Amino acid sequence: MNHAARRRALAALLEERAVPALLVTSLVNVRYLTGLDSSNAAVLVRADGTATLATDSRYIEAARDLDVEVVESSDVAGGLAAPGTGIEAEHVTLAARERLGEGLVPLGPLVEGLRKVKDEAEIDLLRTACAISDQAFQDVLGRIRPGVTERGVARDLEYRMLELGADKPAFDSIVAAGENGAVPHHAPTDRPLRAGDLVTLDFGARYRGYHADMTRTVGLGAPAAWQRELHDLVADAQRAGRHAVAPGADVKDVDAAARSVVAAAGHGEHFRHGLGHGVGLLVHEEPFLGPSRTGRLEDRVPITVEPGVYLPGRGGVRIEDTLVTRAGGPELLTNTTRELLVL
Amino acid sequence: MNHAARRRALAALLEERAVPALLVTSLVNVRYLTGLDSSNAAVLVRADGTATLATDSRYIEAARDLDVEVVESSDVAGGLAAPGTGIEAEHVTLAARERLGEGLVPLGPLVEGLRKVKDEAEIDLLRTACAISDQAFQDVLGRIRPGVTERGVARDLEYRMLELGADKPAFDSIVAAGENGAVPHHAPTDRPLRAGDLVTLDFGARYRGYHADMTRTVGLGAPAAWQRELHDLVADAQRAGRHAVAPGADVKDVDAAARSVVAAAGHGEHFRHGLGHGVGLLVHEEPFLGPSRTGRLEDRVPITVEPGVYLPGRGGVRIEDTLVTRAGGPELLTNTTRELLVL
Repeated sequence: MNHAARRRALAALLEERAVPALLVTSLVNVRYLTGLDSSNAAVLVRADGTATLATDSRYIEAARDLDVEVVESSDVAGGLAAPGTGIEAEHVTLAARERLGEGLVPLGPLVEGLRKVKDEAEIDLLRTACAISDQAFQDVLGRIRPGVTERGVARDLEYRMLELGADKPAFDSIVAAGENGAVPHHAPTDRPLRAGDLVTLDFGARYRGYHADMTRTVGLGAPAAWQRELHDLVADAQRAGRHAVAPGADVKDVDAAARSVVAAAGHGEHFRHGLGHGVGLLVHEEPFLGPSRTGRLEDRVPITVEPGVYLPGRGGVRIEDTLVTRAGGPELLTNTTRELLVL
Repeated sequence: MNHAARRRALAALLEERAVPALLVTSLVNVRYLTGLDSSNAAVLVRADGTATLATDSRYIEAARDLDVEVVESSDVAGGLAAPGTGIEAEHVTLAARERLGEGLVPLGPLVEGLRKVKDEAEIDLLRTACAISDQAFQDVLGRIRPGVTERGVARDLEYRMLELGADKPAFDSIVAAGENGAVPHHAPTDRPLRAGDLVTLDFGARYRGYHADMTRTVGLGAPAAWQRELHDLVADAQRAGRHAVAPGADVKDVDAAARSVVAAAGHGEHFRHGLGHGVGLLVHEEPFLGPSRTGRLEDRVPITVEPGVYLPGRGGVRIEDTLVTRAGGPELLTNTTRELLVL
């Protein structure tokens, strides 16, 4: 892992800003900079490139295995702060700042900026997370059939991801059958699947802290014409979105590449969410793809591309992959077929 | 549910403090005060007892079913704040405060204070969460045997809790076999269980937002004398702790009731964590039981009692129940036997 390189990159940002050190209290950022997975830790990264990690007795042995100076403390942040030290304005609460004392300097999301572009070690972990997700989907397909409930499918999918080595599900799985497919964030219920349903499955594995995110919509029994047309449309839009992903592309334009396909078919109003988002140590992180988002993609940025069309009262289709921007064209991390699977 | 009564209790606190309104942005506190389970919501509760809930399009239909005024907004907090409005100092970040504008009044954990004492509707949900946990444990006992891995046991336990109606596991389950039992927060690994192991299982169901938390340590095959003695000691300590739970009891004294039993057996240094914690919409919340904690228990406070003894390199025992303070003696919500189960 490249934790020392990540701390050096942060140190360079601190030097630019003439801040002597940043007290990192976001646990995800602590993990990114040191490798420590903990519920109570903080790391002080200094502009000279040195760093001190604080954690309590529960994690101290794991911390001592890392390539960073370690101190044991239950008040992890308190022991590291000094006047002039930068703090993370997006993570420090008003009460925490009071406890930390005077003279601290709130700074913007510096570590989040670094986290956007992944190193190859991170992409390897995402590749594994996505491979587990693909395989689990493949393995439970045979159990997606009439009579099984949405909750039952979600349970089986999550169990299989754990069997295949996932830390845990990357997020609360969505299984939405029939009319429930019209609700983008539907939580699984005891509704049984029925012949004639489209069923949307949005799920992913977390592997060593890194999050996969994929969606497929399958048909139970021979699909009606409108179902097949809807699926074809979303698949076309998703392909157009994927093909627009490239280093240098404006996030608004990537969104528009997919959205214009949906709009041209007269379904613009039925696709109301953004096209996708970054994935990494969080399942939703920068960059976000959407009509009102700004910024350009860079090389080695893992993102999702997930257009959907939702017809209230009838159902919906969403197709989502996790992929990585690459100079020669995006690298797909989820590889399950995007054709309509009829079960 | 008694959401309106909860808002009235908060309004009374605001009136005492002469603050016209509190902008509640903690999602757990929003759920407590309104019933809305959402990833993007805020509620303004006024000293006159009225309230306005803001959430985005994904949750707006669910919000409209509640007994509170609702507005749709993606910037949920921004639309509700006004100069003089109180904000939650323990939850609002420095960056969020900047975005909210001038003139806001940081206040302490008012809603958390209310949440400590549960109403009977909340205790009912905890009772169900605990019943699911008890039943799942019972149902997987037959699969806890040599050759199965720690991860495999955790997976089966979590799957069974979902089958029994849990929202999800209340926290990352702990399954710690043999020497791993000496690590209080051990994360399950691929280590297979072996005859002669003590195996500690710490797990719970979340049910409609409420968290169960229980631990049992079982033996695989006839236990050695030291294993049985250790289990007897912890069971004695746990019983002493439970018996000390009463409205009015000092949290330090409840801790001491259990800890003194462990210390008298010469194992004081092998029990380094607090005796327990409150449970509710969070799995760890006020009050905390420990040697350096302050405060007294009140009636209807659900807490855990979970002493443990950990012998580095050898193993450990922990026994934990979730129970509720009651005037006539604590009500146990987890009811699995506390005798050593030999599998």
